[in-house]
Amino acid sequence: MSDPKNEKIPYSLNSQKVATATREWLHKRGVKLEEIAELVMLLQKKYYPDLTMEECLDNVNKVLSKREVQNAVLTGIQLDILAEEGKLFSPLQEMLENDEGLYGVDEILAFSIVNVYGSIGFTNYGYVDKLKPGILERLNDKSTGETHTFLDDIVGAIAAAASSRIAHRKQAEREQQLEGITSELPED
Amino acid sequence: MSDPKNEKIPYSLNSQKVATATREWLHKRGVKLEEIAELVMLLQKKYYPDLTMEECLDNVNKVLSKREVQNAVLTGIQLDILAEEGKLFSPLQEMLENDEGLYGVDEILAFSIVNVYGSIGFTNYGYVDKLKPGILERLNDKSTGETHTFLDDIVGAIAAAASSRIAHRKQAEREQQLEGITSELPED
Amino acid sequence: MSDPKNEKIPYSLNSQKVATATREWLHKRGVKLEEIAELVMLLQKKYYPDLTMEECLDNVNKVLSKREVQNAVLTGIQLDILAEEGKLFSPLQEMLENDEGLYGVDEILAFSIVNVYGSIGFTNYGYVDKLKPGILERLNDKSTGETHTFLDDIVGAIAAAASSRIAHRKQAEREQQLEGITSELPED
Amino acid sequence: MSDPKNEKIPYSLNSQKVATATREWLHKRGVKLEEIAELVMLLQKKYYPDLTMEECLDNVNKVLSKREVQNAVLTGIQLDILAEEGKLFSPLQEMLENDEGLYGVDEILAFSIVNVYGSIGFTNYGYVDKLKPGILERLNDKSTGETHTFLDDIVGAIAAAASSRIAHRKQAEREQQLEGITSELPED
Repeated sequence: MSDPKNEKIPYSLNSQKVATATREWLHKRGVKLEEIAELVMLLQKKYYPDLTMEECLDNVNKVLSKREVQNAVLTGIQLDILAEEGKLFSPLQEMLENDEGLYGVDEILAFSIVNVYGSIGFTNYGYVDKLKPGILERLNDKSTGETHTFLDDIVGAIAAAASSRIAHRKQAEREQQLEGITSELPED
Repeated sequence: MSDPKNEKIPYSLNSQKVATATREWLHKRGVKLEEIAELVMLLQKKYYPDLTMEECLDNVNKVLSKREVQNAVLTGIQLDILAEEGKLFSPLQEMLENDEGLYGVDEILAFSIVNVYGSIGFTNYGYVDKLKPGILERLNDKSTGETHTFLDDIVGAIAAAASSRIAHRKQAEREQQLEGITSELPED
Repeated sequence: MSDPKNEKIPYSLNSQKVATATREWLHKRGVKLEEIAELVMLLQKKYYPDLTMEECLDNVNKVLSKREVQNAVLTGIQLDILAEEGKLFSPLQEMLENDEGLYGVDEILAFSIVNVYGSIGFTNYGYVDKLKPGILERLNDKSTGETHTFLDDIVGAIAAAASSRIAHRKQAEREQQLEGITSELPED
Repeated sequence: MSDPKNEKIPYSLNSQKVATATREWLHKRGVKLEEIAELVMLLQKKYYPDLTMEECLDNVNKVLSKREVQNAVLTGIQLDILAEEGKLFSPLQEMLENDEGLYGVDEILAFSIVNVYGSIGFTNYGYVDKLKPGILERLNDKSTGETHTFLDDIVGAIAAAASSRIAHRKQAEREQQLEGITSELPED
């Protein structure tokens, strides 16, 4: 029997499930967080010579804790999988399967990730997306039968966002040292 | 026998197919272009009292001729359909099915449409998306069993983009009249 | 005497100065944070009937603690002041002075603020920007001799971003209550 | 005596003035359109080996004919000039003068330019902005006493937008050849 009171209980997401699914799906699609951390290191080591892989990984994890990022990762990976399985309608199927040049929804999702720590990450995103170092080269290998039209942009975007987060934090640390004050670190 | 030369011919999209599919899918999902034109009229009549429904419809058609718009429409409708059929993985399925408040990828796709004629359309988009006049109310009716998590935002965004296009054109027409010159209308 | 070692010390911003200047300039331009909090209340009370003005104000303060937001506020107010003083070159001067319809840089800056808590704030921004309740009506009054071409959009954007922050927090609180667990509140 | 009827005539921009001012200010700030065309060639020659400098320059001109682009160019150059003259309030003055790392309004304006032909240009923008080839290296030379905090990003963005426009056009041309039909070239 339906309870009218229950019907009014709004659907309420379990955030922990969304966070966990994001990590699991990245893993299932062959992305190790350490590989994203390596992209961050590549982008940031010339600015912060003492930067450690541990810090890079920590920043990748912080980026992945944001709902906006989780939404983009899950949506992009879902579209990649459906394209791989041939389950999208035509001509969307062909566009995703072939990573078509005039299809830019993958870049749009990537930008919602980069944006999480502001516009200073735009440049880093474009740079790794063009050069395709490390894991990005593997995700772009069209000979594997896998489709990563969204995922390669998403991985580059997570690295760019983590780089922006580092820039904000390092500035705060520098100011603390310079001024000898214990100013608060920026909220995330 | 495979021709190595042929293998190098890149996948090449048939743009006409993409344009046609966009219109067909809007129609299949219950959206008449006239209803989008009515949203445009609602947004613009106070600025241009002589604006006709024909002009509104013409501007909706011009918005729909853009590849960026077609990409967003097709991707959004595809995700709506898959959610309706229960074919997405969890928890993406539940988020789309329930138009979850913290899921913002629908707004992101909508913004790639609004952006096609620049930032002056942002306000119009937010306004119709909040008030949900006409067709937007119908698309938001959760009692039908249909899922339009993406489509309602997309329809509002097309109306907002068409409004921006009208603003650009009307300015050009006004200048022509004021100055008695035959200045070129803006490219689309 | 110049110290070559000193010359290599990069220019380093004092973040506290930027934060303080942001609040001071909002105040000097006639914007009380309580008035922004009232816009937040207007946007959110129907979703959270127990929402207090104190919470709204707290969320406005959190939005203002973000560097991305401070950059947009300072840049926008500076351009408003220069327009008011007639110090911009032509035709930028005329465009800002008259809040010209096809000038959309004010919306672009506003969006960099809204974006700070993700795309779910887009709608709220458009809505208040169109309806111009409370302080927004005053900022738009063209008869005062003051120019607030940027500031009105910025104030609406701060209110929209604070609304998004509330939506994220309230979801976390709800989950804590439902599950009886002490899950972490989202980082900012 | 004031004419009440005249008072109601809305301020109406002269679009030609805006377009002309945009070109003049780029010139005065040392940017030749040919140099932007060279960036376009650098970005696109590997995809279109037959691309000519004339085509690149034509596409740069088409990008510059857009109001959204003109608004961003004029606003950015105005802020650069005021920073160069020391006329901004503190700490905005110091941030622009030093092209401060956490100031991202220049990237935001740049993105409103790139966006004009859709999201496919994001990558090209980030790439040239990071590598700083040709004119971008000169604009970034901090030893000249000139301030181009906005202009270097703007020039890279114009080149990226022109590249996107070329991608759209070349696709249309290819389809015409393949199908032997005279399909319409995309509107601009």
